[in-house]
Amino acid sequence: MDATPGTVRPGGRTAKVRAAVLAATQEALVDGGFHALTPDRVAAVAGVGKTTVYRRWRSSAGLVADLLRDMAEQSLPAADTGSLEGDLRANAALVRDTLTDPRMGPVFAAVIAAAACDEECAKALHGFYATRLAEWTPAVERGLSRGEIPAGTDPLDVLRAVSAPLYYRFAVSREPLTADVAQRAAAAALAAARAGAFVV
Amino acid sequence: MDATPGTVRPGGRTAKVRAAVLAATQEALVDGGFHALTPDRVAAVAGVGKTTVYRRWRSSAGLVADLLRDMAEQSLPAADTGSLEGDLRANAALVRDTLTDPRMGPVFAAVIAAAACDEECAKALHGFYATRLAEWTPAVERGLSRGEIPAGTDPLDVLRAVSAPLYYRFAVSREPLTADVAQRAAAAALAAARAGAFVV
Repeated sequence: MDATPGTVRPGGRTAKVRAAVLAATQEALVDGGFHALTPDRVAAVAGVGKTTVYRRWRSSAGLVADLLRDMAEQSLPAADTGSLEGDLRANAALVRDTLTDPRMGPVFAAVIAAAACDEECAKALHGFYATRLAEWTPAVERGLSRGEIPAGTDPLDVLRAVSAPLYYRFAVSREPLTADVAQRAAAAALAAARAGAFVV
Repeated sequence: MDATPGTVRPGGRTAKVRAAVLAATQEALVDGGFHALTPDRVAAVAGVGKTTVYRRWRSSAGLVADLLRDMAEQSLPAADTGSLEGDLRANAALVRDTLTDPRMGPVFAAVIAAAACDEECAKALHGFYATRLAEWTPAVERGLSRGEIPAGTDPLDVLRAVSAPLYYRFAVSREPLTADVAQRAAAAALAAARAGAFVV
């Protein structure tokens, strides 16, 4: 679509610039991680003026933080399979599929590394997971209302327990993330929840 | 102790150089993370010739890999409290104490970030956790022989389940690592193990 003056709806130009800049940011992270990311490179790849990138995003950390906000907004709807077990298995499969995706895996590795180096990135990553976990809490709440897990169970703790073994292998112990590992993470989280381990 | 010729046991000089180089490596990681680490800086801080550092460690990644080998060798003995619950709680407390330590926390953040950027660091980090997990498997095996968890339970999976929620908060979701979080991680891992979630 041509950005002819008068034909672009309000915000259209700004939204297009942001989309191009965030796509270039993601590209740089996939290519070489956080330290391959510079506002100059992003401006060149996105076809946007350097001044615009520096004014609006300030730094590499600002670019990563905005990419994480965009990723949080674009997340898929949570599953509703009719059972907590089904929903947790779907959640584990989604996390595993994301981390093993040839494009998204390197993006997550890069933002996790960026968060270790930079406080702004760390806050943005924290916000990203707060959003993701909140999206899935209704699945656990439905399980609670169906009596599948004890009253008083903290939904966030159940969801953290599903993700944690997958991220541990991905970012820390560097062990394979098979489909079986994901299903076992979901089963273990459910077993712990049933036993009352996440009652607060 | 003075390194007077004739009074140093074989290997003493080499061991001293390594200790100084690894201390300087750790210092650099605490100060500014993986990207603050250069063989030149390490040589200067350690009081060792650059040529020695480049010949023996080759690169920043080589320094991190050797630091991780050294850390794996120096780990504390695993607990033996008489119950699996006690041992897993001790394990969780140890992991939490390490990650919240003002010196070791930044070292772990830096090596996790380094592993995201560099394959040699990733392999070394994988090796470090393989060593650490193996040291604690006897605790789970004693629990198995006492009948505290079902036969066929994978000891490594139980130990991964204790660590994973702590590392998830530390490196990924960037949430606080309280003593209560550690104890809940141990309790959840034990509950899942008792329910047979880690039977292979």
